[in-house]
Amino acid sequence: RAYDLVEPLHPADIADLLELLERDERRQLAAAITDLMTGEVIAELNDYVRDDMIEALPPEVVAEIAEQLDTDDAVQMLEDLEPEDQAAVLAEMEPEDRAAIESALSYPEETAGRLMQRELVAVPEHLTVGDLIDYLRDNDGLPTEFWEVFVVDHTHRPVGTCALSWILRCPRHIALADVMKRDQTLIPVSMDQEEVALRFQKYALISAAVVDEAGRLVGQLTVDDIVHIISEEAGEDTLLLSGAGDGDINEPIRDAFSARVRWLIANLGTALIASFIIWAFGAAIEKLVALAVLMPIVASIGGNAGTQTMAVTVRAIATNQLTRSNTRRILWREIRVALLNSMTVATMIGIATAIFFTPMLGVVIALAVVINILTAGIAGVAVPVLFDRMEQDPAVASSVFVTMITDSMGFFAFLGLAAAFGLAG
Amino acid sequence: RAYDLVEPLHPADIADLLELLERDERRQLAAAITDLMTGEVIAELNDYVRDDMIEALPPEVVAEIAEQLDTDDAVQMLEDLEPEDQAAVLAEMEPEDRAAIESALSYPEETAGRLMQRELVAVPEHLTVGDLIDYLRDNDGLPTEFWEVFVVDHTHRPVGTCALSWILRCPRHIALADVMKRDQTLIPVSMDQEEVALRFQKYALISAAVVDEAGRLVGQLTVDDIVHIISEEAGEDTLLLSGAGDGDINEPIRDAFSARVRWLIANLGTALIASFIIWAFGAAIEKLVALAVLMPIVASIGGNAGTQTMAVTVRAIATNQLTRSNTRRILWREIRVALLNSMTVATMIGIATAIFFTPMLGVVIALAVVINILTAGIAGVAVPVLFDRMEQDPAVASSVFVTMITDSMGFFAFLGLAAAFGLAG
Ligand SMILES: [Mg+2]
Ligand SMILES: [Mg+2]
Ligand SMILES: [Mg+2]
Ligand SMILES: [Mg+2]
Ligand SMILES: [Mg+2]
Ligand SMILES: [Mg+2]
Ligand SMILES: [Mg+2]
Ligand SMILES: [Mg+2]
Ligand SMILES: [Mg+2]
Ligand SMILES: [Mg+2]
Ligand SMILES: [Mg+2]
Ligand SMILES: [Mg+2]
Ligand SMILES: [Mg+2]
Repeated sequence: RAYDLVEPLHPADIADLLELLERDERRQLAAAITDLMTGEVIAELNDYVRDDMIEALPPEVVAEIAEQLDTDDAVQMLEDLEPEDQAAVLAEMEPEDRAAIESALSYPEETAGRLMQRELVAVPEHLTVGDLIDYLRDNDGLPTEFWEVFVVDHTHRPVGTCALSWILRCPRHIALADVMKRDQTLIPVSMDQEEVALRFQKYALISAAVVDEAGRLVGQLTVDDIVHIISEEAGEDTLLLSGAGDGDINEPIRDAFSARVRWLIANLGTALIASFIIWAFGAAIEKLVALAVLMPIVASIGGNAGTQTMAVTVRAIATNQLTRSNTRRILWREIRVALLNSMTVATMIGIATAIFFTPMLGVVIALAVVINILTAGIAGVAVPVLFDRMEQDPAVASSVFVTMITDSMGFFAFLGLAAAFGLAG
Repeated sequence: RAYDLVEPLHPADIADLLELLERDERRQLAAAITDLMTGEVIAELNDYVRDDMIEALPPEVVAEIAEQLDTDDAVQMLEDLEPEDQAAVLAEMEPEDRAAIESALSYPEETAGRLMQRELVAVPEHLTVGDLIDYLRDNDGLPTEFWEVFVVDHTHRPVGTCALSWILRCPRHIALADVMKRDQTLIPVSMDQEEVALRFQKYALISAAVVDEAGRLVGQLTVDDIVHIISEEAGEDTLLLSGAGDGDINEPIRDAFSARVRWLIANLGTALIASFIIWAFGAAIEKLVALAVLMPIVASIGGNAGTQTMAVTVRAIATNQLTRSNTRRILWREIRVALLNSMTVATMIGIATAIFFTPMLGVVIALAVVINILTAGIAGVAVPVLFDRMEQDPAVASSVFVTMITDSMGFFAFLGLAAAFGLAG
């Protein structure tokens, strides 16, 4: 019965279905539909779910699945296995496929060399459109699906690309050299996936040639894989900023724990700094308990304002919109937004405090809110920008620093102004 | 000189360059390179920058640019203009182009009908591969770039799609009906762009047919446009969760202010609730000022833990990984992670407090941290899931509620336990 229900589904839907199940149910279902568990289904699975399922299979079965797949998908399936499992699978593969995978694994994770597929159509530049069509019709070893043909010189360096629609719209006698686009976006094997994803977006690419250090064509990247990277790169910032690490719901609990607890401990550290500031004003609080009641408001608003600016900055850096040439302009922009925000919020909280406590305390909290929102605006730009200039991912640790700054400044400005105004004297 | 520097650049790079400049410089540069300011450059510009530049141009120039573009790009250029400017531009356009744009504008923003391009290749199903190639070669009115051919029946309903690589690899006498894939992903005009983006990712689409209510082919969506939507949808959650609204660095300051200040005011409201709780324990704080010193730690750690879980949940909902069928499993998973996190953090802060203050206060803060991290784990799943079930975007308002819950619970648990343990008696 399970088989009949699953049979009509697209491989990507079968993969989604497996992901929704719990571990035990998942293995039962996989066992009930073995001949539907094609390489395509495996390739579509979430990394953690796939690794978990692959580990349960004998190496020769995994090797067989890997051989069905394009190199990029086979590499993705094998890269996270334990070294000895990986070796066992590779040993079962045909020498040619094994060599392709080993070569991909020799490039670092998240680089073009690791992500590319070797299967592509490359032809010499002296062909005509008619020659090319005949070659495509007669040759059995070509990939079934491709979107562009790469034209190479005799040293296998790319000299141009032809979209298939241009080829289909030209008479047979036209030379390929006259149809192809010479101005192409070549991706070096060492390019990071984040940069690759930005190139695909910016130049509206469907596929792109990957070249080795010597400039020779060694593989291609296709947009159907890049869409996953775009989504992952844009989505991971949400998770990184919150300190949730990978944030994958299929991640084992121990991994999620160790990814997250380190940021909670960092947060504990910054909270201790804030506590130390409060402790320094302990005598003032003892005399005027209203200070303890109101101080979290100043810190909280500043933290929120800082998070807003930080999110804008991190996103602008990730999309290459914020560069050295406009940092100053963006900083100035954020300061002006912070001024408007702080005036509004400070007025509201100042009046409320004046009514429920004293006018003087209203003035103090309003001033403290203005100071803290301005601080938040500056820190929200400066912290991620500095991380970026130090070649660190600005999404990873900016939150901790911005929160530390806004919390400390919030308590310090409010309690310090209260003391200076003689409110707890 | 500016002209010579800009001339060799790709339109997308010219657009990026314009975005980096300040408003005045931007207009100066645009004036210096008028004949390089093609429709492609305009189409690549950031929405805010484009609107600002378009407003400075006379309607007949805008109409001319719009006519050069595919309908999807023309619509994007015109949709955000003031109604009277839009009408002026449309009045200058050729009737056919105008009708296409007006029809697109009749669909809601961010739906397939608004985003699709009308230019596509559709052919009847009785053709052979050879017929199709001849048609493509002989017909001048076709788009220059396309990736798939849509096969339609006599009522113009799609019956299949052919990737161009399949056509190129088949002999001329083969019937299209034997090459095409019948199992296609059809996009209804009313589908939201977020859902469209998920379909493109899931089924590895390069282009997809858009159909009207009657199931007739009316346009296509192509992956080079969908990549921008994927990036936007994944990135906007980072901005929405922080309360930064659109978060575009090119947004006018007044818009950024009004988008952000509302969340700061909401934050003020939740901070007042927390303050009220502190106020209720004012007598305890007066007696034991250590309570005021330590209470922000409990709130801050809980807030951070809640944000982590919330980010994971929002991301899982956005990628369709979290559905009704596995909500309970994810909730249980997050509770277990929260237990591990809270044990670790509570032990650390408990021991430190026992050393610097009293052992009893150490026990109280440890218990309060455990309670608040558990509360944070539950709220971090429950709040976004409830918003999603109420058909609200879980990224928009979850932060405010989760923060409210963790702040209030943090102060309440810590101060309440301290009172219950007789620490301030
Ligand atoms: Mg999936
Ligand atoms: Mg192979
Ligand atoms: Mg992987
Ligand atoms: Mg990276
Ligand atoms: Mg692939
Ligand atoms: Mg990354
Ligand atoms: Mg990143
Ligand atoms: Mg751009
Ligand atoms: Mg037109
Ligand atoms: Mg728009
Ligand atoms: Mg388009
Ligand atoms: Mg959206
Ligand atoms: Mg969304």
